[in-house]
Amino acid sequence: MRFTAHINVMPLKELLDPQGKAVSNSLHNLGLTGVQNVRVGKHITLQLEAASKADAEISAHEACKKLLANQVMEGFEFTITEG
Amino acid sequence: MRFTAHINVMPLKELLDPQGKAVSNSLHNLGLTGVQNVRVGKHITLQLEAASKADAEISAHEACKKLLANQVMEGFEFTITEG
Repeated sequence: MRFTAHINVMPLKELLDPQGKAVSNSLHNLGLTGVQNVRVGKHITLQLEAASKADAEISAHEACKKLLANQVMEGFEFTITEG
Repeated sequence: MRFTAHINVMPLKELLDPQGKAVSNSLHNLGLTGVQNVRVGKHITLQLEAASKADAEISAHEACKKLLANQVMEGFEFTITEG
């Protein structure tokens, strides 16, 4: 069966996010003054061939741990959908 | 009221995504051979002060159009949650 994994990799809450800070300042300069706590990470979608949704979750978790997220600085979460 | 916007900015489907292709190759080399169609984009979270959820959506849309997404190459989608 084919599944799609929707993965978010975000900088850990405890760490400064300079890119988010820069985006926040730029949004203020554009007039969006109500914006705060901007954090910028990665969104990754990928398709997986797997026997079951549980197997797809194991593969997605492995992909995050081995390659997609640097767990010293980043956390990850994902959802799996069919198709 | 305070809202949180969860924004995904992804390369348009019609365009090549070299970063996604590189990730795909790396995952294959790591043994995850069932992976394909990898696409890599940005995930941005930000907090907004707005009078209503509709107002928060307008602000988030403006932020995407004016700064976060390059609409020549990228599409965006977002969800708004309270808090």
